[in-house]
Order: sequence, then C-alpha cells, then structure tokens
Amino acid sequence: MAKVADKYYKVDPWSVIEEGFEPLRNRVSESIFSLGNEYMGVRGYQEEGYSGDSLIGSYFNGLYDEMKLGAHYKGIIRSLRFMANAVDWLYTRIKIDDELLDIATSTISGFIRKLDFKSGVLTRELTWHLKNGYSVKISFIRFVSMTNSHLGCQRVVISPLDFSGRVEVRTGLDFATIHEDQGKNLWLSLQKTQLNGQCSIMAKTLNTDNRLFSSFKIHTSENIKPIEVKDEQFIGLDFNLSLTQGEVTSFDKIVVNYADKTSESSALAVWSQGIKLASKYCSRNFNDIYAEQVAYWSHIWDTSDITIDGDPENQQGIRFCIFQLYQTYHGDNPGLNIGAKGLTGEAYRGLAFWDTESYCLPFYIFNNPKAARSLLEFRYKTLSAAMERAKEMDCEGASYPIATIDGTESCDLWQHSNLQLHVGSAIAYGIWHYTRIVGDIEFIHTQGIEILIQMSRFYATRGQWGQRSGEFGYYGVMGPDEFQLMVNNNCYLNLMAKKLFEYTLEVIEDMRNTAPNLLDSLLSRLVVNEAEIAHWGLLASKMRIPLDPITGVYEEHDGFFDMPHIDIHSIPVTDFPLYSNWSYDRLYRYDMIKQPDVLMFMFLHNQSFSLEAKRANYDYYEPRCIHESSLSPSIHSILAAELGKQDEAYNFFEFATRLDLDNYNRNTKEGLHTTSIAAAWMNIVYGFGGMRSDGDGLIFKPTLPSLWNSYSFKIIYQNSVLQVAVDRENIIIKTLSGSNVDITIYSQSYSIGSLGIQIQREELISYELVD
Amino acid sequence: MAKVADKYYKVDPWSVIEEGFEPLRNRVSESIFSLGNEYMGVRGYQEEGYSGDSLIGSYFNGLYDEMKLGAHYKGIIRSLRFMANAVDWLYTRIKIDDELLDIATSTISGFIRKLDFKSGVLTRELTWHLKNGYSVKISFIRFVSMTNSHLGCQRVVISPLDFSGRVEVRTGLDFATIHEDQGKNLWLSLQKTQLNGQCSIMAKTLNTDNRLFSSFKIHTSENIKPIEVKDEQFIGLDFNLSLTQGEVTSFDKIVVNYADKTSESSALAVWSQGIKLASKYCSRNFNDIYAEQVAYWSHIWDTSDITIDGDPENQQGIRFCIFQLYQTYHGDNPGLNIGAKGLTGEAYRGLAFWDTESYCLPFYIFNNPKAARSLLEFRYKTLSAAMERAKEMDCEGASYPIATIDGTESCDLWQHSNLQLHVGSAIAYGIWHYTRIVGDIEFIHTQGIEILIQMSRFYATRGQWGQRSGEFGYYGVMGPDEFQLMVNNNCYLNLMAKKLFEYTLEVIEDMRNTAPNLLDSLLSRLVVNEAEIAHWGLLASKMRIPLDPITGVYEEHDGFFDMPHIDIHSIPVTDFPLYSNWSYDRLYRYDMIKQPDVLMFMFLHNQSFSLEAKRANYDYYEPRCIHESSLSPSIHSILAAELGKQDEAYNFFEFATRLDLDNYNRNTKEGLHTTSIAAAWMNIVYGFGGMRSDGDGLIFKPTLPSLWNSYSFKIIYQNSVLQVAVDRENIIIKTLSGSNVDITIYSQSYSIGSLGIQIQREELISYELVD
Repeated sequence: MAKVADKYYKVDPWSVIEEGFEPLRNRVSESIFSLGNEYMGVRGYQEEGYSGDSLIGSYFNGLYDEMKLGAHYKGIIRSLRFMANAVDWLYTRIKIDDELLDIATSTISGFIRKLDFKSGVLTRELTWHLKNGYSVKISFIRFVSMTNSHLGCQRVVISPLDFSGRVEVRTGLDFATIHEDQGKNLWLSLQKTQLNGQCSIMAKTLNTDNRLFSSFKIHTSENIKPIEVKDEQFIGLDFNLSLTQGEVTSFDKIVVNYADKTSESSALAVWSQGIKLASKYCSRNFNDIYAEQVAYWSHIWDTSDITIDGDPENQQGIRFCIFQLYQTYHGDNPGLNIGAKGLTGEAYRGLAFWDTESYCLPFYIFNNPKAARSLLEFRYKTLSAAMERAKEMDCEGASYPIATIDGTESCDLWQHSNLQLHVGSAIAYGIWHYTRIVGDIEFIHTQGIEILIQMSRFYATRGQWGQRSGEFGYYGVMGPDEFQLMVNNNCYLNLMAKKLFEYTLEVIEDMRNTAPNLLDSLLSRLVVNEAEIAHWGLLASKMRIPLDPITGVYEEHDGFFDMPHIDIHSIPVTDFPLYSNWSYDRLYRYDMIKQPDVLMFMFLHNQSFSLEAKRANYDYYEPRCIHESSLSPSIHSILAAELGKQDEAYNFFEFATRLDLDNYNRNTKEGLHTTSIAAAWMNIVYGFGGMRSDGDGLIFKPTLPSLWNSYSFKIIYQNSVLQVAVDRENIIIKTLSGSNVDITIYSQSYSIGSLGIQIQREELISYELVD
Repeated sequence: MAKVADKYYKVDPWSVIEEGFEPLRNRVSESIFSLGNEYMGVRGYQEEGYSGDSLIGSYFNGLYDEMKLGAHYKGIIRSLRFMANAVDWLYTRIKIDDELLDIATSTISGFIRKLDFKSGVLTRELTWHLKNGYSVKISFIRFVSMTNSHLGCQRVVISPLDFSGRVEVRTGLDFATIHEDQGKNLWLSLQKTQLNGQCSIMAKTLNTDNRLFSSFKIHTSENIKPIEVKDEQFIGLDFNLSLTQGEVTSFDKIVVNYADKTSESSALAVWSQGIKLASKYCSRNFNDIYAEQVAYWSHIWDTSDITIDGDPENQQGIRFCIFQLYQTYHGDNPGLNIGAKGLTGEAYRGLAFWDTESYCLPFYIFNNPKAARSLLEFRYKTLSAAMERAKEMDCEGASYPIATIDGTESCDLWQHSNLQLHVGSAIAYGIWHYTRIVGDIEFIHTQGIEILIQMSRFYATRGQWGQRSGEFGYYGVMGPDEFQLMVNNNCYLNLMAKKLFEYTLEVIEDMRNTAPNLLDSLLSRLVVNEAEIAHWGLLASKMRIPLDPITGVYEEHDGFFDMPHIDIHSIPVTDFPLYSNWSYDRLYRYDMIKQPDVLMFMFLHNQSFSLEAKRANYDYYEPRCIHESSLSPSIHSILAAELGKQDEAYNFFEFATRLDLDNYNRNTKEGLHTTSIAAAWMNIVYGFGGMRSDGDGLIFKPTLPSLWNSYSFKIIYQNSVLQVAVDRENIIIKTLSGSNVDITIYSQSYSIGSLGIQIQREELISYELVD
C-alpha cells in the first residue's frame, strides 16, 4: 500500500517553516518543532497558553513514573515505567488591555513558526489584532542549550505597531501538566521559593522518587517590579512592561532544570544542587548562550552534513533527520538512551527498544563515537536489571528488556516482553560493530566483555535442543518480524545468538593474549570456567539455521515455508494498518511479514552472504513484507541498491527522510519517529553510498539515484572526517580532517587523504555487474 | 506429582458430615455444602452471620454483571460478563439476652454440618453456650427446591437446654453482598415493600440490566408481631419468639427468588411477576415442599445411582458427584449452562467452557436426556452471539466462546479466546453424540443442523491451506493441551473439524431423504448453496492429520516431535503448579503437555482407532502429560483401562470422585470442580464399565478394580433404565424399566430385558487379550 505525503511545511534547505496557523495540524507541528538537547526536550507548543488541541510536552530523558499492572502469570511484568511529562518551563501569559493572547481565540495574522537547523532555535512570530483595534507583533524565540544541558532559553519580543501602552506578563514554571496516556498529573510539589526574582520549584513523581528542580530568572532592560505568584504546582512572576509604538520591548527567561532519577540523594541535596546550578547559570546572557549554540551546531554540520543536489525535499528531510538525531542524543549525559519518539511525545511511553542498537547506533558510530559509547554504556549500567529480568524468566545471565527507560522491562505485552529476545543480540552486534569501527579496546575489555558473558549465559539457558533435529535453538520466540507471534527457531535470532556466542569467545580469546590479568579477574568475579566457555562454543556450532538448500532461502522459522500464502497486494488498502483492522490472531497466520527478519541479518552481517544468497532471499521475502514498521523500508532499500534494483531502492527510500515532515503515517502528532529518522541516514550512507562496515575495513559501492544530480555525506572514521561525494560522472572521496584512511571502493583499495581521489563512475560499472 | 488428600469429612454412603467446626476449613466447607437447583445456588455459609473468613455466595444461573476491559487490538474482547454474587436470602440474626450468635466468637459445642444426598437438605446443628451461663441448641435446615426452581426454604429450630426466655430474630433479604473478584457490591436496589409480613425487594446489576426479585414469608406457630427493617439494599423483619426450657421453638422462612436476565421486560413487569410468584408460593408449608424434595431425589437415585462395594470413600465420592451434577443442572430451566464451578463459587467467574459438551454432556445423555437437550439448546439460543463473535474474528458463521455466561465471549486472555477453537467442535461432537444415543430427530432437524451449518462456515473460513503440504488446517491455534500456546495444525482440532464437516454433510444428506422441505427452507434462509456444501466436503477430505507413519503416533501439531524434551519426573515437586512457579513463556517450550490432546480425540472417537494405535499414542503421550487440569486424569484412566493397564487406570481414577471432598487441589474453597465431577462419572462408566457410545450401538467391556468387591451403575438408554453390575465373578446387566435394549458386551450382541443376563467374567478374558 502506498503511503501518501501530507505536504504542509515550506521546503527550505536549512529550516522547517510553517506559514499561517492551522489548528488541526497543531499537534503535528508541535512534534515537528520539538527542541531537545538529549537531557531535556520540549514540544513546539504555544508557550503563551493555547485553549485549542495541544500537547504541552516537556520531557527529561530517563525521568519516569511507574504504573502497577494487574496480577498475571509469573515472568510477566507487574509494573512498568514510562517517561513522565514534566514542568512547562516556558509557561508565559501575555495580556494587553485586559485581553489575553490565545491564538485559538485571538485574532492574529502573519503567523510563522520556524525551526533553524543551524542554531537549533525555534521562532514563532505573529501579529495580534487586539479587540481594542490596535495591533502588536510578537515573537517567541526559544532554544535548549547544546553546550549546557540544564539550560533552556526563551526570548519574547513585543512590538506595538500602532499604539503605546503596557503589557502584563505572567511567566513561571508549571508542574500541573497532564500526562495524556495516564490521563493525570504525575507530580507532587515538594518546595517552592522566590528570592530576588529567582523563582525555583522542585517536585517529585507520584510513584517513583524522581525529582525535578526548575528555576528561572527574567532579564529585561526595563526596571520591573515583579510580584510572586504561587499555586500548588506553580511558581512564577507577574510584571508589566511599557510598550512604545514603533519600538521593540523584550524579555528573556533563562531556565535551569535539574533532574535526579537515582532516588539516592535526599530531597535537600537535590534542591541544593539545583539552586547551585541556578545561581551559576540563570544570570547568564541570552545572546552569549545563543552564540555558543550556533557554534556548536556549526561544528556538527562540519562533520555530519549530507547534501543532496536536485532534490530540495530530501535535502531538507535528511538535515531534519540529522538535526533531530543530535537533539535527541549526543553522548554528553551518561545513563541515557533513545526513546522511540525521542523527547518529542508520549507515544511508546518514552521507551527505548532494539531500535537503539539496530538503527541509531550506526549513525553515532560514524558521526559521534562518544555518543555511540554512551549508548552502549547505558546497557552496562543496566546490566544488573537485565540479570534480574533473566532470573524472572527462569534463566541465567542477562536478558535485556524489549522496552525500557531505566533498564527494567516496561513492555506490558508478554508476547513481546517474554518472547522477543533480539534486543540482547542487537546489543552484542552493536558492541561488535562499535569496537571494530571505533577500536575502543578499553570499552570492550572493561564493559563490553562483561555484557557479552552475561548475555551468553542468558542465550545458553533460554535455548533448547530440538528433539529430532539434535540442534540448538530458541523455542517460543517472536523474531523481529512481529507477524509471526510464537515460533521455534527464528532464523534471525538463532543466527544472531550464534554470532553472539562466537564474538564472546573471540573477545575472550583476544583478551587471553592482550589482557590476561584483566580477563582472569573478570572470569573469576563472574565465576566463568573453561567448561562454560567451551559450552558456548558448542552451542554456536550446533545452532540451527533453517535453510532450504535447493533455493538458498533461509526459512524465517521452523515451518514458515508451509505457512498459508497471501498475496499482500490482494489486501484492500482500507485494511491498513492491519493492527487496527484485522482480528489480532489473523495477523499471525500467513507467510506475510511485518518487517525484515531474514533480510535484517543479511543487512547486519552483509558480507557473510554471497550476492546470490542475498538475491534469492530478497526475492523471496520482499514480496511478502508489508512494512507495517517504519523501520522496514530502509533495510529493503539498502539491499535493493546492493542488488542493482535502483528503482526499487529509491522507491523504498521515498519517504524515509520526510516520514514526519510529510506525516506519512498520520501519527506524527504523537511525536517524531526518532529511531526511523536514523534509518533514513543509513538508507543514504549504506544504501546509495553502498557503505559496508561489517567486514574487514570499510567498503563503498556508491550509486546515484537517477532523480538526483549529486549527493555527499560525511563520516568520522579512524578519527578522520571522510567525505564521500557522488555525482553523475564521478565519485570523489577525501578526508576533511585527520590523517589518511584506508578504504575499499568496490574491490579496489585506496588510501584516502585530504586531496582525495576521484573515480569515474563508468569505470565501476563492470564491478557492479560481476560482483 | 502425586496429589495428597486432605481428609476431613466423615465417610458415609449417603451424606457428607462435618463434625466440629474448623474456621480454617470454613471456605472449603462452604463449597462442599453448597446447595443448588440449577436455577440458583447457595454456598454452605453460616446464615446467622459469621465474622470469620467466609464467602457469602448466593448465585443465580446465568445472572451476570459486566466489566469493561482496557483498549486492545481488534478481535480481542473489550468487556466480559461474569456471574454476579446476589441476594443473601438466608440472612438471619439470632440474639438471646443481648448476645448475638456468631460462631467465630461465640462459645459453641456439638457443631455438625450435614448434607444429605437423599433429600438435598443441609443441616447445621450446634449448642450455643451463652455468656449468661445458659445453653441453647440451634439447628439450621435449608434446601432449594428441585421441584420449584424459585423456592428456597429455611428452618431454624431453637431448643433452650436449661432456661426459658426469649430470642430476638432478624431475618431478611440482603443485597449488600460483595463480589470477591470485583471487590465490590454489584447491585442497585430498585424497590422494597413489606405487606402483612411478606417482604419483597428487587435490585438490578450495576452494569447490565439483570433484575433479581426476592421475597419471603415467615411461618411460625407463635403469634409474632414483626417489625419491618429496611436499609438501602436490605429488607427484613425483627421479631421475638418465646423459648421454653425443654421445648422446641422454630420458624420457617419460605423464599421466592425470580431472576430476569433478558433486559426485555420493564422493571415493573419483573416486579409484578415476582409478586405473583411470591403470593403463590411463599405461603406454602415447609414440610410439604420437603416431601416433594425427597420424592424428587428418590427418583433420581432410582435412575442414576452408582454403587461401589468395598470402597466406602469412593462410594461417598461418586454419590457426591452425581448429587452435585443434578444440583447444578437438570434441564428444567431453559437458557442455562454449567459454570466450571457450577453455582458454588466465583472462580472462573461462573463461566461455562467446553467442559460442558466434553465432560458433562455424556452424564446427562445417559441420565437425563432432557437436560442434555437443554444444554445443546443453550448453544442454539446463543447462536447469534457466536455469529457476532465470528465476525469480530474476521470469519463467517459461528464461533462459540471459550468462556461464557450468556453466549458472548468472556475470556479476557486473547491467547485462549482467539486461539482455542475447540469449543465449537466439542459442540458438534455433543450434537452428534446426543443425536445418536437419544435419537432426537426433531432437535437435529430444527436446531442442531443450523448450528452445524454456521459452525462449518466458521471452520471453513478460519482454516487455511498449507503452502507446502497442500493440506487444509488451522494455523495459530491452541489445542486442548494448553501447554502449546500458538501452533499450526493441532491434530485434535483438525480431526474434530474434519468430523464436524463430515457430520454436517451427513445430516444434510439424511435430511434430503427424510425432511427435504425442512432442509430446503433452512438452506434458503441461511443462503447455503451446493457449492458451499461441496466445499466443506473438500476441506474434510483435505484436512491435515499429522501422523508418524512408522510409529503410528499422531503429532500433536506440526513440529511437536522436535519440541525440546523434558523428563516430567525431573521437575521438582515444589515447581507445581507450573502456572504459578514457571515463567509464563517457559510453560510452552517442551514436549510436555498439560492435558490430553491426541488422547482426547482417541477417547471421543474411540472406535475409529485400533487398539494398537491407542496403545502407541498412549505410550507416547502419557509420560509427557502433567495433568495440570483436573479434567485430565479421567481420560487417561479410561484409556488405560481399555489398554489393560488396570493399575494405571485405578491410579488415574484415584482422586476423581473425591477431588473436592478431600480438597486435592487445595482450591475447593473457591468452589467445587463441577465439571471435573462429571469426569468422575465418565471414569467409572466409560473406564471401568468400558462403555463405548461413539460407534453403532452401545458396547460394554467392564473390568473391576482389584480393590473393589463390586460396583454397579445405571444409565438411561433408548428410554429404558439399564443397570450394569460387576463383581469378581460376574457381569450382570438388566433393564430396571422400559423395553428391551440391544447392546454389545465385548464382541457379543445381547438383547437385554428386565431379567437381564449374567456373564462370567472369566469367559471374557480371552476377548480382553485378543481385541
């Protein structure tokens, strides 16, 4: 079924622009115009108050509340944690001549909302036509600091067009926000103070002991006499400003937010730390912080920009993706992960899935290795929770959660939380991938190996021996393809578990030579003996990998080839999404797949399979896939590009960069598809760029979509910034910084330096055909 | 794992007796001493009020309230209905010298609770030692009328042993009872009146419009001046009676209950009907109703008694089973079914399962054909609900619910409600079985065939074609063995569906000859054409029946033979029940089965399989079955008896008749295992009696457990009552009433009359060995 774009925003290479206000699209725009700095995120809502449909979303990464679930069978979770909607620190109310600004009811014109990728600043402008006949132009400017995670900055600029007078302002910190899914406020206010115009408030989540401190100071050139305003969950100031016709009046609000999610410190300690940060930063000047912000983003674009010539929509789209990825995560704050919707909405409860390692990690490995390590460190920090979970599942070692905010399992559907075991194997793959590319020996020797050992234990105890086959594998599982609910020997999982065991053994073997003391003390601490290690080797060697030897097609799981066939094109368009329109059990009874499963491991371990094998499996599985996951098309696009199916590759790419900008799935109002955004990056770099990073060294086999004139992308590899540029005639690869790097282009090895190399694409056509 | 008896009640051939009161066993006793008359049931609680642990359970068959469920995927139910705990019509309070009787706190002696199978009367006796030093003997006698479903009768007899004085009595109708599972009261009181001592009250369920009217009158020889007592959900009377030392004072309470579950009549109409019934019956004399009751039970024992000589415990046990089955159901009230716990508790929410047709129906077919028809008529009455359900599941025809009180699906676990399809095939089997044995042509031609046609439609649309096998079958199902959660081609289901199609075609073919007009009008009304009928024939002929041709073992489902093996005897005793102690997903990953699946169809269609096939499959599956269903052992016992494994047959029978009396599963406090009780009857008649009713005519191959001297049972067959008696030397079979019937004993045909035949068992041994 074709997805249809809902085109609305102005196409621009470096920003997203909404001209004119459409209330029915307001929630979508709130998601699109989300700001974030990894530590906190805030939707692009109207901070001055809006009585129309809106989701006042302000989120802090990893800050959660908890919900108890009904009694259930053993091993099924009994409570789940979810991202809490937190303080509205932008809270502002504007009143002139007793009229309150509310664009749901006020008369306005010239509404523009603009998000600038070069600065990460969101600007809203509008002209307000007052009931008294006068008009005033107002701009709201905001950003969250990328250089100081605690800082949020707001500027309000007011220009009376045809009058002079006064404006009454209320500004504050509001904890009375509602969490939509829970349908209630989640906060208990603990403390509020105001001292010399510095307003501070601290609250804690209802069911967990997560504390959030928030404080602000107002900066304005006029000498104001603010009056303190308090409510149960609110602290703020009321003040007036003079308006002079033809002149500009403005005020800045500098906010410090400080979240404590550990429950370890006393409330007093959290409060003191908050006050300390507030004293230090709230007095800072808006323009200074803004200058740092612009410099930060400038550096990011220097190392991570992608250009597309001849396709302004995808040019905007891919920059939007890169921008949002950096907003969501950049590795400055330890202990965080990436929710499926980032910090832009409450769908998927703010939880992180295997998307992190499978879809997002490659972006960070090649753009921000520190962030990549930080993501893997999240798994190390939550190892004990994963070990608890394994125990609950009657297994040993560590079972990583299918959905989590703090390391505990928070998926309340047992068919996913208890049957989907591919988060762990994706983490193992991520460690392997990161270690190979970044060469971070310290990480693998201290943290990575411990994760691998505990996961090997889990996969050894969760697996079983087939009674007839005599092979080892996983029974009662759901693979990445969520349209096969409870199967035996999911080929993807078995293969990935095999690789996990093998990699664990490889690292152990390597450490025996390079870090024997470290290894000995680890094995001793974890009580691993040689027999256990040997057993993992046996399991890897006996792992069942269902394969039809005649066709070369891997069987997605035991019995898949006998599953009743359905021609997916025969399904009426109105049946989609099938989750909403088909009886739940019906989803699971065909050879129809939701997202790549066999093809997923052919992407991940791409170089372990011949082109012939990839072709056979692509030709078998592609026609059976309905892509009811936004993560699905990019993998197909990448493989199609490799198989020389250029049109198909472009078709699958089609909405990758603009999934949210054009609201293809009609659910962008719930938040951005943050992890799918990462897939758009992979789609260009691995797909059209033909990059492969799963073998020895880095390979590129670039192709050029026929609709594009040229494109280029940058990656960080071996501490150098490498730029790959492809146009109709040439491929030009060079380093933008750092020393020379060795890479392979098609089958030819090159050492690339700042002068780079230029290869005529025609020369390569032979490679494309004979590989 | 061995189940252990908790022996407590006195062994007696015609009653259950508790001597002395044990508060910790009170809930178990309340279940054991439950009374019922199919229309209503009441647990054996202390009606005078009891401040200890107790479940004041008063239930009306088919009377339900509803609970909304959270949002979920399509096809998964969104609300469920459950049996409501209703009016406490026995409500009584006894006060002497300002002291209230409450055996949790009062000083008592000589407590006896006794349930008499010959009259269905429950008697409690105790001597109450008052704080003032005097003692009084009190008896509470109650029964629910088997001859008038609306009538409940209570007698309280008070004998002061060493004083004269007065007793203050409060008696009433109390709707303020709590439903334990819901943790709240479910009733809204609509009306209350008192007129000349006749107290009436009507209330309705909170979420459904089920109305219940209740009314009583007090009968006593003394001229009392009762005072009306009203509360929101209560109406009653306060009165005093004189007590004279050495004399007996008593009062009777005659109650009429009238339940309306249709929501069709106005509240006023229900009230009027209740008042009408109350006027008619509440004035009746206790002793007269009691006399009818005794006569009714006497007739039941004449046609349904089972005797066991040499085993007093099983003698009591099997009579308890027969007694409870009749209490639960006897076919006098249309539109009712049998909840898993009958009318004795709130576990399983009062819902009916496939147990009705698979386990209970044979008892009624051979003891009370009218009740058997009534059970099948319940399915006809709820056909439209089953058709709605099929539609929700994206299918055609009728899908009968896995758990129901009124025909709608009320199982809130999708893995059962959406995957377990064997209720329908059990109903088809039940219709087939009933029709063959009872010969009720009218039923099959008017109701049965319509059910069969709509079910054939369902099984035709739910089934699919295997892509490789080219065979038809069911994908994504759970068979009777609930330890294989979501499998393809469950052999039991496929075979039963095949039989369903074949039987539908057989009835259609038969009607073509015997009732062509009826058939034509039915086919026309249901829009069935010849192509559809032919299609069902095709599906039956192409049905996949997984079988290992070498071993002769049927494969429980595709891939079962490769399921990882577990030696069930290696599981620690403390792991049981596995549902409570194993991670949910772990239950489903072995070749371990919960209850018979392949063996179940070998029991149901027993004569379709050779002894050799039964032996091969029994020997394969029996060691893999952990019997974590109380329905499981009896089927194994019956097949073991057939296979000449006499000790094993007796071992599996061991706790069948006394599952509740000896509280083997330690959960009798939640209610009786009513449907398992029916299995106990099957175990004797089909197991030791060797009866087979699934072929042409009736066959007996009786054996005698070595611990018994003799046993006998009675059945109704072709309108005659047939008695089968087996002792160490002989088998004696005769009719007790009705004309001669033709049966087969081993391979020999006999026409049996009132003189009967006597066969020396020794003569038969050759048959046993060579069959």
